[in-house]
Amino acid sequence: MRHILLWLALPLMVVATPDASAQAVRSEPGPRVLVAYLSKSGNTETMARAVAEGARSVAGATVTLKPIADVKDEDLFGADAIIVGTPVYNGGAAGEVKQFMERWPFGRLKEKVGAAFCTAGGTSAGEELALMDVISSMLVFQFVIVGGDSWEAAFGASAVTEEGKAKDKAGVDDGAKAKARGLGARVARVAGRLKGGAR
Amino acid sequence: MRHILLWLALPLMVVATPDASAQAVRSEPGPRVLVAYLSKSGNTETMARAVAEGARSVAGATVTLKPIADVKDEDLFGADAIIVGTPVYNGGAAGEVKQFMERWPFGRLKEKVGAAFCTAGGTSAGEELALMDVISSMLVFQFVIVGGDSWEAAFGASAVTEEGKAKDKAGVDDGAKAKARGLGARVARVAGRLKGGAR
Amino acid sequence: MRHILLWLALPLMVVATPDASAQAVRSEPGPRVLVAYLSKSGNTETMARAVAEGARSVAGATVTLKPIADVKDEDLFGADAIIVGTPVYNGGAAGEVKQFMERWPFGRLKEKVGAAFCTAGGTSAGEELALMDVISSMLVFQFVIVGGDSWEAAFGASAVTEEGKAKDKAGVDDGAKAKARGLGARVARVAGRLKGGAR
Amino acid sequence: MRHILLWLALPLMVVATPDASAQAVRSEPGPRVLVAYLSKSGNTETMARAVAEGARSVAGATVTLKPIADVKDEDLFGADAIIVGTPVYNGGAAGEVKQFMERWPFGRLKEKVGAAFCTAGGTSAGEELALMDVISSMLVFQFVIVGGDSWEAAFGASAVTEEGKAKDKAGVDDGAKAKARGLGARVARVAGRLKGGAR
Repeated sequence: MRHILLWLALPLMVVATPDASAQAVRSEPGPRVLVAYLSKSGNTETMARAVAEGARSVAGATVTLKPIADVKDEDLFGADAIIVGTPVYNGGAAGEVKQFMERWPFGRLKEKVGAAFCTAGGTSAGEELALMDVISSMLVFQFVIVGGDSWEAAFGASAVTEEGKAKDKAGVDDGAKAKARGLGARVARVAGRLKGGAR
Repeated sequence: MRHILLWLALPLMVVATPDASAQAVRSEPGPRVLVAYLSKSGNTETMARAVAEGARSVAGATVTLKPIADVKDEDLFGADAIIVGTPVYNGGAAGEVKQFMERWPFGRLKEKVGAAFCTAGGTSAGEELALMDVISSMLVFQFVIVGGDSWEAAFGASAVTEEGKAKDKAGVDDGAKAKARGLGARVARVAGRLKGGAR
Repeated sequence: MRHILLWLALPLMVVATPDASAQAVRSEPGPRVLVAYLSKSGNTETMARAVAEGARSVAGATVTLKPIADVKDEDLFGADAIIVGTPVYNGGAAGEVKQFMERWPFGRLKEKVGAAFCTAGGTSAGEELALMDVISSMLVFQFVIVGGDSWEAAFGASAVTEEGKAKDKAGVDDGAKAKARGLGARVARVAGRLKGGAR
Repeated sequence: MRHILLWLALPLMVVATPDASAQAVRSEPGPRVLVAYLSKSGNTETMARAVAEGARSVAGATVTLKPIADVKDEDLFGADAIIVGTPVYNGGAAGEVKQFMERWPFGRLKEKVGAAFCTAGGTSAGEELALMDVISSMLVFQFVIVGGDSWEAAFGASAVTEEGKAKDKAGVDDGAKAKARGLGARVARVAGRLKGGAR
């Protein structure tokens, strides 16, 4: 039905105002993705940049990258998708990140796409619990949740920065960055689809 | 761009095969929702019926309701959304439900919408863990996850059937059924939007 | 072996220094339990008092009850068991409680007994996730974890203060207080046993 | 007080039944640890053997190692500690392991020490969720829970067998085996202390 009307309308629009029409079609805004992170050592920021890079790789996507301390309510309202990054503290998401999410305006973020990423020192040291912690909070805000784009990033993208690595190799490795880019891209794609479907 | 191509293509299609064309446009199927559940006492089946009822309330939605033992691969492949219901056993999802999901074909269910519901005897007796357990499994299959349509059903719809109830009032009460209907409806809506956005 | 030595030694001790002997026996300190909580509305404090009451009911137990803001490192070091109470925010433990635990001295709390309690507005609104969040953090500190003394308080004691209650009945009800007392008592008993076994 | 009574009683016992008395004292059994696991590829069995080896390293410990299919109720009742090992399926504990625990006799395993271990193909692919899933089930049975003996094995011992490894290095590596041994040893120590404290 939507398409039938469009089909009837488009020729008229093209005749009357070809530029506007083209713009009307082109300017349908793509997904706006907010990547918000907390980083002390720089590792989570490295992951955040890779997540943002992945999101930007999706045609039409607009990406905002901010430390959580700089995120304003407008950033949240203006986003179609919010991806939150946290270091793993005590086997879970950082309390500071939890408090950041506690300040989110309740009831006004429904149906936004949500996802999570994290960094941890060791394997099975809380990465999954941190990701699921962010996800469960997003579920309370009634987000639509997606993970990364492989089973190895099922709950989001995580980087193990120390365990099993030589001292000089510590940090976010290429595999983790690829997971982060994959997460950003998938979130932008799903947010774009949801946005397209809502029109 | 998508729409421009459509605009170019549609007139030709209309000329060539008007019926097919009309059907192509009109028949855009609404979301197909599979509600799969395990129920021993009947409580989870009661919830499943309410979830299905909620999904059916969404215009265009087609709903299939089946015990997990009857679910075929075609049911999974044919669904845009899968909602899994489990009783709470030992503070989590039933092992039988876990095994049902272990048999799902890996890599072929990506981007389906997923959600969970459950029944438990008592409050805080495993409802949330059961729901999150189903959700985390769905994340491994790269589902897009949604919860219910209120903060009281954030992780899905749950019913507490015994604790705090008179013996003759045991079972799934109206509040739980409302949560279940809300879950079904929200899942169908999001699945419809995602489907619309993918066209 | 321990008991044989004791049996040989006790008569001598009794003869030689009856007072010291009596004291040696009497002064074996019972379990010291710290109940630390965050409470804004007073509900979590009500639960904390019931937890403390339960712990005090165990012979020989010494109980300290403190808001998390008042807890000093000495309180943590001096405790054989630490029970943490949190309101449920966004489907999990409060960020402030997470940050409180992030300040705990790493590596010095091993083998203490740990447990959790919480309050939430609604059923399945995050109680279990909040309790498991505190528990997983305690596992990182290598605590020995116990839940409440019934399957309805498996992960700790929780109170649902609003959902399904008349406005004037909102708050911590008797069932929740009983769970809290049961948790406090069980924690003190297990801490006492572990302490006895370490001698 | 306990000791005073013992002091009064022991001389009489020694006179009456010296052998029985000596045995009563000498035979105080050390902790009996059951290691129960499910293994398809052999990886979880490798971990199970390392867990058992760690438990056996504790003086006085008796260890039983069994696939879950062979575990009898007597094995459960006779154990002071039960350590359950599972492969990670779909981001959590295997359904077969969940069903194994669903068959446990309710209400008769209280105060046993419980712990978990697992194997997974990839990092953050469900190890923590699988461990916490076993732990939360054990909490329903009112176990006393412990993790491994380092923060890298906080929730139990896990092995990542594929991700980040050359094909010919796939499997359980030495680091994972060390975590498994550490877990077994810690569980036996805590079970021994609890047993000692209960006398």
